[in-house]
Amino acid sequence: MLFIHDPRPRRKSHVRGAWIFGAICGYRATNHHCGEVTIRKACPISAHSSETELREQGAVFMPRFDSAGLVTAVAVDHASGALLMLAHMDAEAIAKTRQTGFAHFHSRSRGRLWMKGESSGHVLKVIEIRVDCDQDALELRVEPAGPACHTLAPSCFYRRIEDDGSLARIEDA
Amino acid sequence: MLFIHDPRPRRKSHVRGAWIFGAICGYRATNHHCGEVTIRKACPISAHSSETELREQGAVFMPRFDSAGLVTAVAVDHASGALLMLAHMDAEAIAKTRQTGFAHFHSRSRGRLWMKGESSGHVLKVIEIRVDCDQDALELRVEPAGPACHTLAPSCFYRRIEDDGSLARIEDA
Repeated sequence: MLFIHDPRPRRKSHVRGAWIFGAICGYRATNHHCGEVTIRKACPISAHSSETELREQGAVFMPRFDSAGLVTAVAVDHASGALLMLAHMDAEAIAKTRQTGFAHFHSRSRGRLWMKGESSGHVLKVIEIRVDCDQDALELRVEPAGPACHTLAPSCFYRRIEDDGSLARIEDA
Repeated sequence: MLFIHDPRPRRKSHVRGAWIFGAICGYRATNHHCGEVTIRKACPISAHSSETELREQGAVFMPRFDSAGLVTAVAVDHASGALLMLAHMDAEAIAKTRQTGFAHFHSRSRGRLWMKGESSGHVLKVIEIRVDCDQDALELRVEPAGPACHTLAPSCFYRRIEDDGSLARIEDA
């Protein structure tokens, strides 16, 4: 385990800050000794902490939405690992997905929440949600109830670019 | 094979249009008989053709760039199928990737082309490029030369969301 020595004098507010951060991020604050401070490096209140470090290494889910309030979401077949589809989620879609266990997205063209498969029945049961380093993309590990693509292909990624620049259908996609 | 009957009268320009479309999309135009027209359903000049059909079912690579000139690109380990990272590509990045065989992206923060691994050496050798149904997303099937994430994790998706909403590190990611 790595430790960082912080020579800052003991201040009550800092101790309280340590407790609050500890509570938020899920790290126990019992190892923080201010004055002569010994802090776990992974803890977001280390002397070198920053929002970037917290976002990349922390235990707090803090999605980085774009100017339209969206993150990119990639659905992957949990069993086969196949890339199925790509869509976008806002805070509402993330909440609804976590609440129901079925993938919900935000339709940019229709400007509304939609559940994948709401009309076709080809829903995506969410097994696990992963987040990337800077928290602007999500990986939904899913169990698809049918073809993931609206074209009825198992995956939306059913063509590859050939050497001559044309597209060719992939047999198993 | 499915055929579509087109009752439109024979016009020389239509014949020429058929030939041009056939040449662009890679379908042979020899089956187009105008006047009493017999056309392969898959051909983009069918009576029911549209840009959507051409984009979704055609053999022409016509990426649908957003207002910033970008498509989303997802890098997947060709051997393991693991989702590695997500970035963006403009026309220049796509061209450079196809030309060199190594993944290039467009950095939105730096506003410039970059080759993944240009400083770390952790390049992504591109085995295959796939495109999704509406051609606004690409799947790069790659062979990574090292950790795909700048944090030195093998994949950028190294944390999952737990039931209590906190993030937990995934052992094998």
